[in-house]
This record gives sequence, structure tokens and C-alpha cells, in this order.
Amino acid sequence: MTIKAVVLYDGTNFSGWQVQDGKRTVQGEIERALKELSGEDIRIVGSGRTDAGVHAEGQVFSFKTDLKIDDKRLYKAINARLPEDIRLSSTQKVDDNFNARYSAKKKTYEYRFYLGETINPLKERHALNIYGVDLEAMCQAAKLFKGEHDFSAFCSTGSSVKTTVRKIYSCSLKKSGDDVIFSVSGNGFLYNMVRIMAGTLLYVGEGKIPKENVLKAFESGDRMLLGKTLSPKGLVLKKVEYGKI
Amino acid sequence: MTIKAVVLYDGTNFSGWQVQDGKRTVQGEIERALKELSGEDIRIVGSGRTDAGVHAEGQVFSFKTDLKIDDKRLYKAINARLPEDIRLSSTQKVDDNFNARYSAKKKTYEYRFYLGETINPLKERHALNIYGVDLEAMCQAAKLFKGEHDFSAFCSTGSSVKTTVRKIYSCSLKKSGDDVIFSVSGNGFLYNMVRIMAGTLLYVGEGKIPKENVLKAFESGDRMLLGKTLSPKGLVLKKVEYGKI
Repeated sequence: MTIKAVVLYDGTNFSGWQVQDGKRTVQGEIERALKELSGEDIRIVGSGRTDAGVHAEGQVFSFKTDLKIDDKRLYKAINARLPEDIRLSSTQKVDDNFNARYSAKKKTYEYRFYLGETINPLKERHALNIYGVDLEAMCQAAKLFKGEHDFSAFCSTGSSVKTTVRKIYSCSLKKSGDDVIFSVSGNGFLYNMVRIMAGTLLYVGEGKIPKENVLKAFESGDRMLLGKTLSPKGLVLKKVEYGKI
Repeated sequence: MTIKAVVLYDGTNFSGWQVQDGKRTVQGEIERALKELSGEDIRIVGSGRTDAGVHAEGQVFSFKTDLKIDDKRLYKAINARLPEDIRLSSTQKVDDNFNARYSAKKKTYEYRFYLGETINPLKERHALNIYGVDLEAMCQAAKLFKGEHDFSAFCSTGSSVKTTVRKIYSCSLKKSGDDVIFSVSGNGFLYNMVRIMAGTLLYVGEGKIPKENVLKAFESGDRMLLGKTLSPKGLVLKKVEYGKI
């Protein structure tokens, strides 16, 4: 049967999602747990890779297995064999055509900032400390991402993709107490795209660039118009959606 | 001069606040940093001890120093000598009679829960996972703590205090998304008192005890009427207030 699973992880102590020799990776830990459970060499397919240090509260992966087990309870058996920084929240049997990567229709990421003159050790692990920024300007800039655009400027080198056009369905920056959450949903994201979007908002908030640079970057593809690629620690893959959007 | 300082720490990797031989403690780390900075053997006085694993976003301590330095900028010099899981957010010169412990008038703690059928690795470090509880019953029970009561039943053995009467100024349980925060302010707290209060709310939420047990425990002092002492990881010392309340 083919299984779709939802997984949460604290990326701090992982060299990212993808299996790499000698490195501790999320995919590697899950495949090891599946091997322990089933005896099978199972290769899982994630909705996409996440980089070293990036977190997830709703990453999705799929795999095929001959295990005879209630699909709805399978995640508990896998969790029992996983380290504490990875937890599956559900498993379910799906159509054999389902592929977590190719079937994905929409992804939602959060980039988490928090306000404070000094760092807060309780927030530092999963958010980036900022201070003295113009939040209203950042909100205004965030709105510019919405819609279908060529995001080639919002992409670190090293990725090879057919097209750099992506559609952003929604995008917002919300403040709650000291927390400032940048939330973005789209049909796909280029390499480092969310971290560059967040870095661009921060540069706008710091007055280093005007928000219009976002529009200029869509036109020109010029990476230099934008903010820097922010630390992975503030980035969380929140949700991956399938089916009709 | 006498300095009042506010400090935040992630208690996960500390054996609590108080200096103990051979253990990593918050007080120990701060005194080491002060020694490095000033050359003086400075003994700091915390508003109170926090146990192993308990966090703080607003612990206060005081100390006397002969350092010739701008009191308002002193915290930055100390921070530069502290590990990442401790950060001072302010320092200021105060009256020489000030003592962070004896001058404290009001303390506010939070106990953080989060809802979820499985643990969330991004929340697990600073909150306790709960599931299938009656939040409304927990809210009702939380209200019973307000006022002046004999909290002897809400106290782990091993503490010696003159009186077990404490006044709770405010007390609430609030839900925000999956987070459920128990917040309590009072003129003082007995040993493990907040963790037993939170454990009692949880037992009420799980239907293990009726909320009226809180009132019976005030009368009888019977620890057995209440919930268990919850894990330190959900507890945060949020604020210590001085002066008139």
C-alpha cells in the first residue's frame, strides 16, 4: 500500500531533510525507523527538501510498504522508533498514484521573527530576533509578493528548475505580542525563496531598501535589489496541500 | 553601587538557579561572567530560586559592585560573557537598600500547555503536551485560586516557610491556537506551587478530580486532593515586580 504521512520536526540538529552519507537527516532517521519496524528498505519521498536547520510542523512524505498494519495507527509505531525531535502526526493509505512531491499543490511556510533589544533564549531556537524595525513598511512590502511573478531574483544559485515563475496565494505579516510571523502560501517555492523574501522584508523594515525593490526584482531578476538570505532557524514548513486548490 | 538586573534563560540545560558545586546553574554562570568582567567575587541575589529545567523571561537579581561603568549599559558587557541560553535585558542602578529577594512584591508565572494528539518537537522544549481535556472546566478551576488562601496543600515537602498563606492577584487559562497558557500572579509562591496548581488544572481537565477539590485542599491542606507536580519544562517566571502593588 501507499502511505501519506505528516511529520513535524525541530530542524536544529539535522543536516536538513535529504539523506546524506554520515549526516543526521530527517529522511535518514525516518527510513531507519521504517527499516526497524518493517525489515524493508523503504525509500520515502518528501514534498520537498528542507535545508539544514529548517523546521516543519506539516511536512508530508509518502512511501510504499508491504507492512500489514492499520494505516491510521501506523504513525504511532513509527514514532516509537524516532528520536524526540521528529514526530509523525498522522498516516493514511492513499491512492497508489500519490507522490508527496509531484502531487503537492500548495505549500505554506512561516518565517518567525520576534522583537527585542536583546535575544530571548526561549525564542531564539525557532525565530530570528529583530529590533527597531518599521513593521508597517514590512506589512506593505509583504503584500507585493501576492500573485504570479517571476521569482528568479528570490533564488539562491545552485538550483536548476524549468521555470522561476511561482504563484503566491496569500502572504501576510502579523504581530502577536513580541512575535512577528511572516506567513506565505504558494504553488511552489524556489531554493531559499522564503528566506530571501523574509530577508527582503527585514531590509525594508530596517530602511535599507524601499519596498518597490520587490517589484523591480520581479522585472529584472536582480538578486542585489533584495535583502539577504535569513537564517534557517526562523523557517517552518507549516502545511502541504494536495488535491484541488 | 547596587544594580538591579532582569534576566531571561532557557532552563533546559541548567540545574536550576542556585549555585551548586559541579553543576551548571544560572547563578553560577552569571557570577562567573561578573568575575570575568570586574575581577570581583560578586554574589548575586535572585528574586527567588528556580528549579532545574524552569525557564525565565523576567527573573530579577541584584548585586553590589565597585565597577566604574554606565549602569544602563552594563547588561551588554555581561551578556558578552554569558552563554546563549542566558541573556540580560536590562541593568540599572538602584537604592542600596534594594534586595531582589526581599524587596519583591509580586511575581508572575506562566505554565504553558499545548494541545495535540502527538508531541510537537517545536513546542516540546518549553511546554507540556496535553490532549482531550475539558478546557472550560480548567478555566473554571483556575478562577478558584484567586484571593488569599492557605496553599499548604500546594507545596512539595522540603520547604520551610513561616506561613503557607499566599495571595493570588490574578489567575487565568487562555487558549491561543494550540497553545494553552496558565498565567498566575501573586505576592509569593511556595516550593513547586505553580507546578502543582497547573497539575491540578490538568487533573480537572482530564476529569480525574472535581474542581471543588481546590477549595477542599485550601481547608484541609491535603496534597492528595490535587493533581501531580508537572514537569518544570512548561514553567516560566515571567515577571517580578517591586515597589507599591
